[in-house]
Amino acid sequence: MTEISRRKFVGLSASVLAASRVPSFAQAAAADQRPVGFAAVGLGTISGIFTRACSTSQTAKITGLVTGHPDTKGKQFAERCNVPDSSVYTYETFDHIRDNKEIEAVYIGLPNSMHCEYTIRAAQAGKHVLCEKPMAISSAECKRMIDACKSANVKLMIAYRIHYDPVHLQAQELIRSGAIGQIEAFEGGYGFNAGPNQWRLNRKLAGGGALVDVGIYPMNEARWLTGEEPVSFTAIPTTRDRTSGRFAEVEQTLDFTIKFPSGIVGTFGCSYGADMPGFLRIHGDRGSLQLSPAFDYTGAHLTSIGGRQRIDVPPQGESGFQFKLEAEHFANCVRTNTDPKTPGEEGLKDLVALEAIYKAAGTPMA
Amino acid sequence: MTEISRRKFVGLSASVLAASRVPSFAQAAAADQRPVGFAAVGLGTISGIFTRACSTSQTAKITGLVTGHPDTKGKQFAERCNVPDSSVYTYETFDHIRDNKEIEAVYIGLPNSMHCEYTIRAAQAGKHVLCEKPMAISSAECKRMIDACKSANVKLMIAYRIHYDPVHLQAQELIRSGAIGQIEAFEGGYGFNAGPNQWRLNRKLAGGGALVDVGIYPMNEARWLTGEEPVSFTAIPTTRDRTSGRFAEVEQTLDFTIKFPSGIVGTFGCSYGADMPGFLRIHGDRGSLQLSPAFDYTGAHLTSIGGRQRIDVPPQGESGFQFKLEAEHFANCVRTNTDPKTPGEEGLKDLVALEAIYKAAGTPMA
Repeated sequence: MTEISRRKFVGLSASVLAASRVPSFAQAAAADQRPVGFAAVGLGTISGIFTRACSTSQTAKITGLVTGHPDTKGKQFAERCNVPDSSVYTYETFDHIRDNKEIEAVYIGLPNSMHCEYTIRAAQAGKHVLCEKPMAISSAECKRMIDACKSANVKLMIAYRIHYDPVHLQAQELIRSGAIGQIEAFEGGYGFNAGPNQWRLNRKLAGGGALVDVGIYPMNEARWLTGEEPVSFTAIPTTRDRTSGRFAEVEQTLDFTIKFPSGIVGTFGCSYGADMPGFLRIHGDRGSLQLSPAFDYTGAHLTSIGGRQRIDVPPQGESGFQFKLEAEHFANCVRTNTDPKTPGEEGLKDLVALEAIYKAAGTPMA
Repeated sequence: MTEISRRKFVGLSASVLAASRVPSFAQAAAADQRPVGFAAVGLGTISGIFTRACSTSQTAKITGLVTGHPDTKGKQFAERCNVPDSSVYTYETFDHIRDNKEIEAVYIGLPNSMHCEYTIRAAQAGKHVLCEKPMAISSAECKRMIDACKSANVKLMIAYRIHYDPVHLQAQELIRSGAIGQIEAFEGGYGFNAGPNQWRLNRKLAGGGALVDVGIYPMNEARWLTGEEPVSFTAIPTTRDRTSGRFAEVEQTLDFTIKFPSGIVGTFGCSYGADMPGFLRIHGDRGSLQLSPAFDYTGAHLTSIGGRQRIDVPPQGESGFQFKLEAEHFANCVRTNTDPKTPGEEGLKDLVALEAIYKAAGTPMA
């Protein structure tokens, strides 16, 4: 019987955290010690969380803002983030960030369909790019984003916050150490009851429905934990609410299965029509782990299920923790000229899989 | 906030239990008050559990045994169940149960491929039949079993023990009462790491692999809770263990999705290659429920997940509880000449779905 207590976990997670930051600021003696300045592009909910996360960081700092509403949201964010008026841009003046030396990187928290354009424009302005998931609304766009950042010699990272969460990193570490033997199968899901009149429900802006927004989480984590790319896909979409008008353009709920080259399989659900608390069950031939809750901004909880092992890695950290960790990871990459753990190529692989799932569902992406 | 405490549950479950027994022995004043005598057919693990469950019942009693090993297993069971030597039969002498008035019903705990033959022979011997799941290895066999029991005017029940478990009945009651609104989607799974050299791994005897044996649980419960029959299916089978020889004939692991006419979807996993603790997540547009553990013989635990409601229906009852409840339900049906809640038609519907899932997987049932 193996018990991973909170105390033991603290030690393990320290090494896990250190690994996610290599080389650290301290280690990179020659590196510039200033915090990396980010412009937040698009001031919606998620940029609110990102900017709050940076406000407690020593290495990532908000130094610019881009918004269509400079006089309202722009002012509010500027005041809170201590950003001067001269560093608040609109989408029309966006390209002028090129001349702002305080802005070294952008955080793209825009609707999915705008990720590609603003990543490319940021790269052309010489800024590093941290872009929200899904990376874009097609794999073709992802490729253009990767090419543009390479050409401009700037770094591109996709904001897969889960990859920076110490509880999820602990799951990865346990699996690598053989705690559940060889992975056999996954089950997972994530969803929420989406209110009307938001860009998520507009196909042109979102690229898809629940799958691209929340179904991506368990699928991405299965890809991450196996280190493989799925090769077979099935999917069943469903839209039950025909009265509210919410689902005229995107799917409400979608169940899908994937299979990896080694034979590992996964079965997942996602929804905009039901509050589906995020979870992931990971089955190996020697045991099973569960992340539940799994995909919220905080509170990820890892436990063993069944079997003789007892593993319990309790939720860690404060609100916005994942956002701070991902911002600091990218800041480290910028300062030390190293590659992010979740580069554009990671986002591209998800889009390739999402396209395959929609194709299997009979509702190809636009 | 709704809290269903243990105390409140006790009240609710009493009504649930009462419902499962209508009309009760007490109510059926005119009915014969003797316990119903069962012959257990096939003395494997599951008959061991069934016969032990009956040993504590006032209404179901083991009065006969059928085995290929009368001198070993037959003797052991006979002694424990207090069955006279004259009521121990072999498969050759099986049909003589016709002349044994102490045997009113049979419990069929044989390998799946033998369910059809022994159900029909029991019916022709004038005995009521309680048959384990899966009902048979094809829907055609199920139809023959139903017809044979109708012709012989005997009752046929499939041993869906979950339908008699008070915690699962409570889930059904809560859903019916609107506790989670309209059902939107399910996720579920069940599996175990199957040892070598057992009939489950022989396609001729089992009819299929993990799906027919354990994957049937979450699917059957989704059918039960929705009251609908699935109309769309996808499936991905996988066999990773190519060295032990266990999976030469049946699938090791299978992930599948189903869709009901109303648009409700479900995504499920099952395995013989990993210990997959049984679970079922039920999402409605107003909340979610989870059964975990879900499908073991005891210990089913129902909770709300996420949302503002707090529901916690703790595990109930002693070992073999479900088996005792299902035996007593069938005994009641026999005594009061009423129809079982899980008749042959219920087993047939599962076989129709299993056939569709294997077809979607590209590995049709024999």
